[in-house]
Amino acid sequence: MTLRDRATALVERPGFANFILVVIVANAITLGLETSPAVMATVGGLLLTLDKIFLTIFVVEIALKLFSQRIAFFKRGWNLFDFVVVGIALLPDSGALSVLRALRILRVLRIISIAPQLRRVVEGFVSALPGMGSVFLLMGLIFYIGAVMATKLFSSAFPEWFGSIGASGYSLFQIMTLESWSMGIVRPVMEVYPWAWAFFIPFIMVTTFAVVNLLVGLIVNSMQDAHAEESNAATDQYREDVLRRLEQIEKRLPPAKED
Amino acid sequence: MTLRDRATALVERPGFANFILVVIVANAITLGLETSPAVMATVGGLLLTLDKIFLTIFVVEIALKLFSQRIAFFKRGWNLFDFVVVGIALLPDSGALSVLRALRILRVLRIISIAPQLRRVVEGFVSALPGMGSVFLLMGLIFYIGAVMATKLFSSAFPEWFGSIGASGYSLFQIMTLESWSMGIVRPVMEVYPWAWAFFIPFIMVTTFAVVNLLVGLIVNSMQDAHAEESNAATDQYREDVLRRLEQIEKRLPPAKED
Amino acid sequence: MTLRDRATALVERPGFANFILVVIVANAITLGLETSPAVMATVGGLLLTLDKIFLTIFVVEIALKLFSQRIAFFKRGWNLFDFVVVGIALLPDSGALSVLRALRILRVLRIISIAPQLRRVVEGFVSALPGMGSVFLLMGLIFYIGAVMATKLFSSAFPEWFGSIGASGYSLFQIMTLESWSMGIVRPVMEVYPWAWAFFIPFIMVTTFAVVNLLVGLIVNSMQDAHAEESNAATDQYREDVLRRLEQIEKRLPPAKED
Amino acid sequence: MTLRDRATALVERPGFANFILVVIVANAITLGLETSPAVMATVGGLLLTLDKIFLTIFVVEIALKLFSQRIAFFKRGWNLFDFVVVGIALLPDSGALSVLRALRILRVLRIISIAPQLRRVVEGFVSALPGMGSVFLLMGLIFYIGAVMATKLFSSAFPEWFGSIGASGYSLFQIMTLESWSMGIVRPVMEVYPWAWAFFIPFIMVTTFAVVNLLVGLIVNSMQDAHAEESNAATDQYREDVLRRLEQIEKRLPPAKED
Repeated sequence: MTLRDRATALVERPGFANFILVVIVANAITLGLETSPAVMATVGGLLLTLDKIFLTIFVVEIALKLFSQRIAFFKRGWNLFDFVVVGIALLPDSGALSVLRALRILRVLRIISIAPQLRRVVEGFVSALPGMGSVFLLMGLIFYIGAVMATKLFSSAFPEWFGSIGASGYSLFQIMTLESWSMGIVRPVMEVYPWAWAFFIPFIMVTTFAVVNLLVGLIVNSMQDAHAEESNAATDQYREDVLRRLEQIEKRLPPAKED
Repeated sequence: MTLRDRATALVERPGFANFILVVIVANAITLGLETSPAVMATVGGLLLTLDKIFLTIFVVEIALKLFSQRIAFFKRGWNLFDFVVVGIALLPDSGALSVLRALRILRVLRIISIAPQLRRVVEGFVSALPGMGSVFLLMGLIFYIGAVMATKLFSSAFPEWFGSIGASGYSLFQIMTLESWSMGIVRPVMEVYPWAWAFFIPFIMVTTFAVVNLLVGLIVNSMQDAHAEESNAATDQYREDVLRRLEQIEKRLPPAKED
Repeated sequence: MTLRDRATALVERPGFANFILVVIVANAITLGLETSPAVMATVGGLLLTLDKIFLTIFVVEIALKLFSQRIAFFKRGWNLFDFVVVGIALLPDSGALSVLRALRILRVLRIISIAPQLRRVVEGFVSALPGMGSVFLLMGLIFYIGAVMATKLFSSAFPEWFGSIGASGYSLFQIMTLESWSMGIVRPVMEVYPWAWAFFIPFIMVTTFAVVNLLVGLIVNSMQDAHAEESNAATDQYREDVLRRLEQIEKRLPPAKED
Repeated sequence: MTLRDRATALVERPGFANFILVVIVANAITLGLETSPAVMATVGGLLLTLDKIFLTIFVVEIALKLFSQRIAFFKRGWNLFDFVVVGIALLPDSGALSVLRALRILRVLRIISIAPQLRRVVEGFVSALPGMGSVFLLMGLIFYIGAVMATKLFSSAFPEWFGSIGASGYSLFQIMTLESWSMGIVRPVMEVYPWAWAFFIPFIMVTTFAVVNLLVGLIVNSMQDAHAEESNAATDQYREDVLRRLEQIEKRLPPAKED
């Protein structure tokens, strides 16, 4: 038994996944506690040490899997996901990059890749995305056109909201979610450009309608999948049965007379 | 006829449930009137006396049921529910616990456990919950990770909104409901951290998408239940009929000749 | 031909309904123009005269129908509706009742009772209501209990929002629609009662969930209606066909031999 | 080969559509860059020249198609769409009409008419509209009546929100989207007219219910289309098969004896 076989045997033991799951949950708790200044003042050192131990365990786990599966490791999306969220913690943690420290909690998302129920939910979400590709593309187009128009029309008077394509895109996203669209944005804009509603109300209608169509598409798809899976097995069985029996009956009949 | 048999006979009389229903509705009215200072100034004593009488009736009712059904009483979820909402009123009503007094109105929820139509609606709601368990777990995970990240990133500049995991969780819930997410929270945050949208907009998209998937799951489930119940009885009857007849026909035909 | 027969013949002429439709649309326009002070200053007298003429036409129309159909007139819901919205305009229009003048525009709703497409939409809405009765009752219960609790808990500190059951009910409706629920109401309340979220967040979840269930119920019902109507006709025809033919075949076969 | 045949051959080459697609995307980028003052300061001249070149290409393209297809060109909705969005850029660009300059970006919408996937999505949207015609008409009616009533009732005290039918319609649209309906509009109105909720809450309920019914209608329609397309082909094939076979069997049997 080579070293590689031993590594494979280890990482494929059910206890191994459970152990990693426990470590992830423990790490989720320590990372949560680290947000409390009071807790950090008392047991901060312990928490940071635990965090280093947990990180080491993750690194060893992924090194073992890499050693066991070689290139095949990267062929599975979830492995790549694990690799990235653990890898983040290994990046140099210099002053300006305090954001990276906040990203360490993403490691807890590994629960999804280990727990099959959660994995299935996420895979369900992801599998629904390609079917919505065209609508997403259309939404992107509408947002780009809307942002360019809003910038050209309103940037001089409202630089904070529509000063650049990026700012306009953000404001239009806010308007699409209907948050303060009228009292916060459109009414003030209409005080300068009284016809501004003619831009924003169609924008709201078109994007809302597109979102509704996304939703309808999702529902119809799920329904068809569910419907197809469930009822068709029984129906197909029945139909085969009927056709087979009709064939039997036909065989037992005298040949048709040519009139 | 033992005392226990008599108690059983009494609580199972249809009039008994109707009487309790009337008492609950009357109690709902007195508890409502108690919120009005003007009414309390005139007939406050009467209302409090009525409330005590109603409470006594509920206590006697539950005591009778307990005496009649013994341990079996607690096996039915609705009985437990009744026991708790009536029991709340018996807790000592000391100064600090004025909240408990507000909880007395929960007693009115007993209407649900008595009226079959309402009970069925609530049971329908509750029966839909387990199927959504994975999505709820995932939402919890997203909220925990989001709250830890938001606390790490924004707690120093915005202690009121993101000062602790609890505060961040509440703010993220508000953001998920889209209430004042941009004008109230994200725009002020972006003045300090201009890249903050890169945290909040994905958060909104992911949680909204998860909520939409919950909704789609609910619709598909209800539809399948409704569909299965309704159409399958007739279809199964028809299919059985066809297959039985074909079998009969086959039996009455001469065996197929082997060519 | 009696006078009554003539009245019946008149109101049942297709031209009669079309004439009334034209009058309603014309009246909608005059009532709209009456809202503009500039228009009223120039042609106000004409508009008010036209309005009186239109009202007279409506009164004559309903009088004719009453004369023709007698008591049967009130058996049709739409007739009652017409009777009430026209009747409003005949109430004495004294100073304090300027509200009644605003209600005259409700007359325009008569378009619905005359145009069959609109009538069908409204009848579809109304026919969906009874199936949602239990959920509405439950929502009413939740709102009543929530309003009593909110009044008991928060009326002393926030009389404007939760000073009485009515005020609390309105505020809870606002919270259910998610409008400013956090920044506008719950955050200020939490400054006095830090645990207030434990009341409001469950309230939001329960009412939102109930609304979602209403929606799901509506979708499932419509779908079943549509499904049943459409596909079953073809299926029933086919099944009848198969069964009839199997019977024919059975008749033409020699009787089964008793083995 | 006439000149017209050559033009037809050219515009129908697959490379031609791809070339136009590339030009549209390039133009989308230059129009986007034009919104940035910094970019305009450095390469503004180049961008404007490119824009003119792209516009020339579009004009030549449409001229070629017009020359090739003559009147038939305008029979296809998408051609009309292309004609209008390109034509906008040719209108005189005088000082007051800076709005027209902002409309040039609409040209990018031509991507939809060229990319089949996007075209299908938009055609799906548009094909859903006629079925919702009655509900839209009803919504229009509700908005008109609501706007007239709100103007009559509240214009004197709140001229900014309800000063004219147009202002009221806009405010009611805002209220229908639930944006700041209570804190922003109805609570201030209720300080003057305490019964104002009796107008606004029914308005919210009726319009929300109508929107929900639109959504339900959309879902049911899509579902039926999807259902009909998918399952019926197989079912129809099977049913034809069974009926044909039963007929054959009947033919091969001796006629039924008259008892």
